[in-house]
Amino acid sequence: MKRRLTYSFLLFAVVLFSCQPKEVVQENTGFPKLILQKAAVPALVDGIEKYPMLQTSFAQAKETADKGIEAGITVPFPKDPGGGYTHEKHKLNYIEMYNAGVVYQLTGDEKYAVFVRDMLNEYATLYPTLGIHPMKKNQSPGKLFWQGLNESVWLVYTIQAYDCIYEFLSAEEQANIEENLFKKVVEFFTVEDKYSFDRVHNHGTWAVAGVGMTGMVLGDSLLVQKALYSTKLDGSGGFLKQIDELFSPDGYYAEGPYYQRYALMPFIVFAQALDNNLPELKIFEYKNGLLPKAVTTVLQLTIADGKFYPINDAIKEKSWMTPELIFGTDIVYKLTGNNKLLNVAEYHGKVMLSAEGLAVAKAIAEGKTERFERVPMLISDGANGDKGGLALLRMGDSENQTSVLFKFASQGMGHGHFDRLGISLYNKGEEIIPDYGAARFLNVAAKEGGRYLPENKTWAKHTIAHNALVLNEQSHFAGKLKAAEENDPVLVFADLENPAVQIVSATDENCYDGASLNRTVAMLQVEGRTYVIDLNNVKNESSAMLDLPVYFNGQILSANFDYTRLNQYKVLGTDQGYQHLIVDATAQNLPATASLTWMQGNGFYTVSTLADANTECFITRLGANDPDYNLRHQMGMVFRFPKAKNKKLLTVYEMHGDYNPASEAVLNSEGSVKSLQLIEGDDEKVAILLQLKNEKTIQLLLDLKFADSVTNTVQINGETLSWDKNYKVSIK
Amino acid sequence: MKRRLTYSFLLFAVVLFSCQPKEVVQENTGFPKLILQKAAVPALVDGIEKYPMLQTSFAQAKETADKGIEAGITVPFPKDPGGGYTHEKHKLNYIEMYNAGVVYQLTGDEKYAVFVRDMLNEYATLYPTLGIHPMKKNQSPGKLFWQGLNESVWLVYTIQAYDCIYEFLSAEEQANIEENLFKKVVEFFTVEDKYSFDRVHNHGTWAVAGVGMTGMVLGDSLLVQKALYSTKLDGSGGFLKQIDELFSPDGYYAEGPYYQRYALMPFIVFAQALDNNLPELKIFEYKNGLLPKAVTTVLQLTIADGKFYPINDAIKEKSWMTPELIFGTDIVYKLTGNNKLLNVAEYHGKVMLSAEGLAVAKAIAEGKTERFERVPMLISDGANGDKGGLALLRMGDSENQTSVLFKFASQGMGHGHFDRLGISLYNKGEEIIPDYGAARFLNVAAKEGGRYLPENKTWAKHTIAHNALVLNEQSHFAGKLKAAEENDPVLVFADLENPAVQIVSATDENCYDGASLNRTVAMLQVEGRTYVIDLNNVKNESSAMLDLPVYFNGQILSANFDYTRLNQYKVLGTDQGYQHLIVDATAQNLPATASLTWMQGNGFYTVSTLADANTECFITRLGANDPDYNLRHQMGMVFRFPKAKNKKLLTVYEMHGDYNPASEAVLNSEGSVKSLQLIEGDDEKVAILLQLKNEKTIQLLLDLKFADSVTNTVQINGETLSWDKNYKVSIK
Repeated sequence: MKRRLTYSFLLFAVVLFSCQPKEVVQENTGFPKLILQKAAVPALVDGIEKYPMLQTSFAQAKETADKGIEAGITVPFPKDPGGGYTHEKHKLNYIEMYNAGVVYQLTGDEKYAVFVRDMLNEYATLYPTLGIHPMKKNQSPGKLFWQGLNESVWLVYTIQAYDCIYEFLSAEEQANIEENLFKKVVEFFTVEDKYSFDRVHNHGTWAVAGVGMTGMVLGDSLLVQKALYSTKLDGSGGFLKQIDELFSPDGYYAEGPYYQRYALMPFIVFAQALDNNLPELKIFEYKNGLLPKAVTTVLQLTIADGKFYPINDAIKEKSWMTPELIFGTDIVYKLTGNNKLLNVAEYHGKVMLSAEGLAVAKAIAEGKTERFERVPMLISDGANGDKGGLALLRMGDSENQTSVLFKFASQGMGHGHFDRLGISLYNKGEEIIPDYGAARFLNVAAKEGGRYLPENKTWAKHTIAHNALVLNEQSHFAGKLKAAEENDPVLVFADLENPAVQIVSATDENCYDGASLNRTVAMLQVEGRTYVIDLNNVKNESSAMLDLPVYFNGQILSANFDYTRLNQYKVLGTDQGYQHLIVDATAQNLPATASLTWMQGNGFYTVSTLADANTECFITRLGANDPDYNLRHQMGMVFRFPKAKNKKLLTVYEMHGDYNPASEAVLNSEGSVKSLQLIEGDDEKVAILLQLKNEKTIQLLLDLKFADSVTNTVQINGETLSWDKNYKVSIK
Repeated sequence: MKRRLTYSFLLFAVVLFSCQPKEVVQENTGFPKLILQKAAVPALVDGIEKYPMLQTSFAQAKETADKGIEAGITVPFPKDPGGGYTHEKHKLNYIEMYNAGVVYQLTGDEKYAVFVRDMLNEYATLYPTLGIHPMKKNQSPGKLFWQGLNESVWLVYTIQAYDCIYEFLSAEEQANIEENLFKKVVEFFTVEDKYSFDRVHNHGTWAVAGVGMTGMVLGDSLLVQKALYSTKLDGSGGFLKQIDELFSPDGYYAEGPYYQRYALMPFIVFAQALDNNLPELKIFEYKNGLLPKAVTTVLQLTIADGKFYPINDAIKEKSWMTPELIFGTDIVYKLTGNNKLLNVAEYHGKVMLSAEGLAVAKAIAEGKTERFERVPMLISDGANGDKGGLALLRMGDSENQTSVLFKFASQGMGHGHFDRLGISLYNKGEEIIPDYGAARFLNVAAKEGGRYLPENKTWAKHTIAHNALVLNEQSHFAGKLKAAEENDPVLVFADLENPAVQIVSATDENCYDGASLNRTVAMLQVEGRTYVIDLNNVKNESSAMLDLPVYFNGQILSANFDYTRLNQYKVLGTDQGYQHLIVDATAQNLPATASLTWMQGNGFYTVSTLADANTECFITRLGANDPDYNLRHQMGMVFRFPKAKNKKLLTVYEMHGDYNPASEAVLNSEGSVKSLQLIEGDDEKVAILLQLKNEKTIQLLLDLKFADSVTNTVQINGETLSWDKNYKVSIK
């Protein structure tokens, strides 16, 4: 791998170093040249007349620009931290400049160019006077903003605005703005804050994108080279290294889809600018087309309505309805002509104001849209694809899709959660067995200024907050980031191609000392019901109590065991997230197959688990030790298995039935599982039997070593069942 | 009123009695004649080709009929109660016959007629052998079904199926089916179960509709007369009396919109059959067009997405997406040509297979649809409009509408709740301050077979379950139906026409002995925020503790007072619904203006109340004494005011702000009310002041006697404020 990388680097370096800066400029047919290109303007103007989505997008840009012009120009001296006046004003300024620049190009109305010019002049006056921001927050402060990150974003937008009005300016005006503003800003990044610029981190991507795009507009090829290869020009940092390191070969970003969506913006924008101005770099083909893949992968990491699977720190409301993915979708559509992306763009309802957006709007108007299908997928994690990953088990068409997200990914850096081998279930666009996501009310001032809440650490990151196995009431890696970052789970086996069953197995050897956790998840559909068979296989040097949490929303309908709602206040534990769980009801003496059915929306759901004599069930709700109501209401069950060294836990989640309020018809509101059986043979061979109430049996035979053995056998009631290779499913 | 009624009755009787039965038949151009008429068939067949909505509707009818034919005919001997096999089978049979009859008319394919004929023949063989149903449930059993109600519904559908295949049959076949089936069934209703037939009750409407329609098909004018005027033919019962008694002059049905929707079906179907066959009756003009008004009123009694306001016993999921309102909407559209109804029909996505449905489908295809607007309304209750009513305060356009339902209606019979002067609030289609509705999971077998749960009585009907004032922890009328039925609240004043403010005041003198409750609700919008000012005015001969509950969903964000979440299990009370409320947090020593803000979906909500030194606030959640999780999770606040005789309680609900997950922008997440003031002058003159944080003041001056006085005054800080008539609102 390393060799190939080095080779790639040299190849690109040769291509790049042979480009003369002035030639780059001359090759172009003029300004703007970054994203919206001069040559595309006439067709775009024409397209705005013709295509409703372009019309809408243009109207929104114009409204933003007009509001800015109406309000007048204010470029305040930097003073406030995030959320404060000067912070928000500088953010608004770049948005207004950017939109005014684009609208100038599309209308030719000089008032928009004048607005951008005058504001840039004010920045050119202000910027050289600035030191580091007085409210500097961390090791990478900016000058206009408390964080360098904000300053990079400012540059990405502002250089595009300048690009749009470049030809409107006199040579003196250009010189003033470039000397006193842009050259100072890039100097700040490439000299003063070199550390951030060269760092292989999503914040660095914003910096290199801003600097690289500035290099293109200023005709400074060295800046572009620094953006691509670090200030040392040796490839130890810079854009290509960032692509190499930050995405897996399957286009996955380790923090998870919520942050992937955010991180994508500078990648995709800078890449488009590079493709427009240095097409010989073939940036979109780099590493097997990794950047377009990162876009399509994150689009796949959504539930039916475009919301991201909320693993790790994630705000649940966030969906692909974001500027980042409008850019991403449009750019990848133009590259690939994949008509399924038009379906996503239709959800957006708007497009980029560029050749890419035009292509999308035109294709939609021509009726080329194809349905965007979410498909079963394995997604590797890690720069080399060897740090675990995610599996998406999916059945059914778009509207009625059932999916399981099985997480055996790496820790995911600071925004990762401690839920090795966690699962979450979704049905018809609803969360059924949910991931809690982040404890945060984004930008809601009353909740810690909209920042992460303390409960993000005390609850949301902990293992018990997830549908993942907990030993001895301790989180994985005891909730310590460093150890978690150094150890990854391993995919053992997957088959998502079999129409009868989708099956994935993964193992984590490190999250508990001396223990190995393996989880195998299989999804299948029988007679309109979806079954998810879930086998946790624990091997442990010492004895441990096992807690299997299953969170759910909606209304408990029935259980095949007696439970007692408590009329006393009881908290499940004292630490590691347990201190937030209130025990609402308890059950002991569970039957061998313990089942509980609930209703959510128009669907019915049943969980069945194989219980021991001493298995307990707690029905829990969230909210203990939460004096400010920072945690959402969340019901759950915790199945608690008494101390054991090695243990196999069999659980089945069943999605069934339909409640139709219009016709008042209710179908299949009861679970179908009469009993579960788990029969163990030699050497990790197991037979899982779901005996159904209709007397049918679903049988799943597994070699838990997934050793590709040619013959496997298990004895059941004197009968020998045998199968080849890793598994066999049958319904009788 | 009585005089006019008697006069009407005579007029209609004269018209009707002068019709000779045979003439009725001959006037017609043949069969079918009830709803789908022979003359309409060619145009309808043509329309199915042309109009998508007719196409869909026809395809669904055909699918139902085809399934029936494929499954074959089974007419089982009646044995099972509701939900059991024979019960469900007889229900399915009439649905299949009805659809097959219609499809026969529209395709001419005789297999559909044969299916209906053969099934009717089996019924004609079976019916004469039947006695009362073995599982008879109440005083009005049927023969095919355990309840006579089901038998009436069977007749309404089955007579239409017979009507559709009448001309396909030989005279012998007609005679057999009429003699052995239909005449026996109507004899059952008009002789054996005369009590139900003549009863002025929604169940009676199904019976008269079935019998009356049978009379039309059989050419038996006496049956039609009995249906219209009771078996005694004296107007003491029958269809006209039912219209007179069961709807208010504003078209409101006392049980509330959920049951109104259900009750409408036989009214509207029978009326259409009457209009088609006895047009001289002008049934749709009867009582000022009361039946069409009942349809448009219930359509207005919906929240943004067509769900009914869930007052009284109501299933919250229920919306206008029901067969009853497809019939109602289509029929009233054909009558009135009101293009706004097309908007409702578009929601339905299907239409009646009749001239009415054709008219709707055609008009929609021609682009005639106008937006259905929900408007502010007063809706009287009671046959004479003198038993209180409902007020709908509404501001904003359809999608962003804010509404308050203020309930000062009569008890609403057995399905009524004890919530005199209760309110509920809705915003952008979401319930904000909700009514609990019924404690029932309709047709969900695991929850008491889908019937009303015990908690419907112990919780849902009680006053504390509503946003209504409770004295001394006792429900209105102590939760006794008889007293509640005999006493109604009174509308005191309403002005919904003022664009600056909508205001309604109502009084109940009877729900507590010796006490008079008055509530005045005013809604206004200022700078994008909606304020609902709520003044409860209690006059009491003795001293009472006052509880004002405010239910809410979503997440508590902040309060301007300290509260303590309890780490002990505490139930608010022991009876009258209080036994179900868990105290989750408490607050004492409230500030003079106590405010609490929460977030729900993308909106922010603040309640502010004027507190005494001894006012307490309980934050509650539902679920105590609910061993089987029959109650939904529901958060609430109860403001408890210490014992007082006379007391005015001022509360303001504010809807504000916006959370936009796409742009991550949050606007106006904080409440705007800095302080509330209530200044009382002489003789029930009051000034209400909302001092806002932006230093503006909203001032509402009220004469609580609403005496139309020409001058009213109140002293504030030495200043005299004066106004004419009942109220004045100003913003300064």
